[in-house]
Amino acid sequence: MSGAGMSRDPLNRDQISEALAELPGWDLRDGKLHRTFEFPDFRAAFAFMTSVALRAEAMDHHPEWRNVYGRVEVWLQTHSARGVTQLDLDLARAMEDCAG
Amino acid sequence: MSGAGMSRDPLNRDQISEALAELPGWDLRDGKLHRTFEFPDFRAAFAFMTSVALRAEAMDHHPEWRNVYGRVEVWLQTHSARGVTQLDLDLARAMEDCAG
Repeated sequence: MSGAGMSRDPLNRDQISEALAELPGWDLRDGKLHRTFEFPDFRAAFAFMTSVALRAEAMDHHPEWRNVYGRVEVWLQTHSARGVTQLDLDLARAMEDCAG
Repeated sequence: MSGAGMSRDPLNRDQISEALAELPGWDLRDGKLHRTFEFPDFRAAFAFMTSVALRAEAMDHHPEWRNVYGRVEVWLQTHSARGVTQLDLDLARAMEDCAG
């Protein structure tokens, strides 16, 4: 993915589409990477969120997310770039790891 | 607050107003108790969420919440009652404790 670019440069639609092909469950919604994760209960959902929080803090890149019981809905965008960047893709992949 | 009632019985508007008078920052929005908490950064916001998560799990009553960086927006309602109950007030107070 766009290895020559800076991680906080906005990606174009083709680059995003190419990356989404390898991220099942994710789509582009209102200019943000979007996915809903479903867990059996709050405990599992919050365990996931805690794992993601540690990764996000280490990346210094944070999600917008909404939780209700076992459901965690996520939107990723790089505010400074006003678009989706490599950082968002990296965080999406980290979330997939955490959802295991 | 309605000490004779069951904690999962819906409260009426007067009971909710009376309780909100002692919960600064909270209001009733779309039939749910609502407040936005602001923290200096993600780390502080997620530390708050973690404290609340432990309390919520112990109460077996969970929030609907949305987090973006240092902001945590919360909506509380008891789904089985289709309204606000004593449990929601208890969770709101627990959140105030956690926000310190």
